[in-house]
Amino acid sequence: MKKYKRNQRVGALMKIFAERPNYVFSYNYFSEIFNAAKSTISEDVAIVRELVEELDYGKVETISGASGGAVFVPVMGVREKNDILNELCNLFSNKNRILPGGFIYFTDIFNNPGIVTNIARIIASEFTDKKPDCIVTVETKGIPVSILTGQKLNVPVAVIRRNNKVTEGATVSINYVSGSSNNIQTMSLSRRSLKENSRVLIVDDFMKGGGTCKGMADMMREFNAEVVGTAVVIETREPGKKLVDEYLSLLLLNNINEKDGIIDIQPNNKLLK
Amino acid sequence: MKKYKRNQRVGALMKIFAERPNYVFSYNYFSEIFNAAKSTISEDVAIVRELVEELDYGKVETISGASGGAVFVPVMGVREKNDILNELCNLFSNKNRILPGGFIYFTDIFNNPGIVTNIARIIASEFTDKKPDCIVTVETKGIPVSILTGQKLNVPVAVIRRNNKVTEGATVSINYVSGSSNNIQTMSLSRRSLKENSRVLIVDDFMKGGGTCKGMADMMREFNAEVVGTAVVIETREPGKKLVDEYLSLLLLNNINEKDGIIDIQPNNKLLK
Repeated sequence: MKKYKRNQRVGALMKIFAERPNYVFSYNYFSEIFNAAKSTISEDVAIVRELVEELDYGKVETISGASGGAVFVPVMGVREKNDILNELCNLFSNKNRILPGGFIYFTDIFNNPGIVTNIARIIASEFTDKKPDCIVTVETKGIPVSILTGQKLNVPVAVIRRNNKVTEGATVSINYVSGSSNNIQTMSLSRRSLKENSRVLIVDDFMKGGGTCKGMADMMREFNAEVVGTAVVIETREPGKKLVDEYLSLLLLNNINEKDGIIDIQPNNKLLK
Repeated sequence: MKKYKRNQRVGALMKIFAERPNYVFSYNYFSEIFNAAKSTISEDVAIVRELVEELDYGKVETISGASGGAVFVPVMGVREKNDILNELCNLFSNKNRILPGGFIYFTDIFNNPGIVTNIARIIASEFTDKKPDCIVTVETKGIPVSILTGQKLNVPVAVIRRNNKVTEGATVSINYVSGSSNNIQTMSLSRRSLKENSRVLIVDDFMKGGGTCKGMADMMREFNAEVVGTAVVIETREPGKKLVDEYLSLLLLNNINEKDGIIDIQPNNKLLK
């Protein structure tokens, strides 16, 4: 069986940790893939831990004991957040995005994995301390950012549907009031998709009145779940009073001037402190 | 400004490449973040390239010239594919997944980022040579696997909707025949979400008759796009004749025995050669 040198193992560990942040890898697993003693692995991980700190990538935590292991917890610095948010504002504010009726075409951005991975890294970095064990979103446009945030936090995603599907098994349905249009709508979540007493992070692409996020929070009560945070990519400045109290938005949409072709959008300064 | 040692830069490069496979990073970018000369970066990349090959992670390709850079192209070995596919079969064949009417509850699996990342890594590895520049899927359950495959191939995703939405701008709609139920259904895709003459990889979660994939292929003609591949996570053994000819499935669902609680599912052996 192949043996590896220390610099090879350290390089491999950087890759493995980067591909699966917040996942606890056992020393046994590393022992097996590198064909090396656990004491050797333990020294490798110590080197990687130092490396990750020196490079400001976050931290590597080790769990001791028989079931010992290590986990990479990424933390994003203010400078990188600032760069990402400003790039997003440039992208979102392109005047060609304005649609008739003052709507904005965002779909390509929310379906671009490279862009959404960066959005997800910010959300994950902000909520890692709240230790959510599930992300909840509603179809359709919120799914990519939720899946990628789930990837970064290493937690599953529960997708609330607008309609009941036969392949979802038993579901819980609630009615909610859309905050902006005052329409009554329905949302359904499969019983199986969320464990009772979960710690839930609610994620969505866009918040205007906050009715959808409020609906999701109401749904969580039916699952005895605790909402530990709510994150949206964009919120509109108006209405200033949303139907949910506590949430984090990455970007603030101040105004759309359809006539002059101006989309005024800015980063949430709270993230840059 | 901070200076880094070689082993730090090599570790950082492993992380950066792993987080964004198939993305071409310029030497200028590395020069800037490491505060090092381009010649130094070039040597670092050569070390990483060797490391990646020794570890069987794929390859690092370098682009020379003024706009020089490097890209990590992951390739998955047969052993890892085999492990992932067998783990998937275990997961999918749990008898508690059987729903009334012979349906199977799969939603939790298709919304689990850790599991779907592995699925996406296999699909990306199989289709990287076809050089798709976009992934096309249809809402809802195919979105996570498409987004994560797009992440691994570094290409955007276009999501076909079941209904027209005002925030999609101008759309193209087609009717298609569901292969299993013979119902006529509609799908719509925003004009802006797919460039003309794209090389498209079609991705979906499940194929029975193949009507949905056929519909997506038909839709591609309206965008003058070339379908360079079709990938589904699960296909059913029956009907043996699908409405599309060429596709790759990861798993084959042989049979569901509702009475005895048996889901008979196996890896696609073509992938394990």
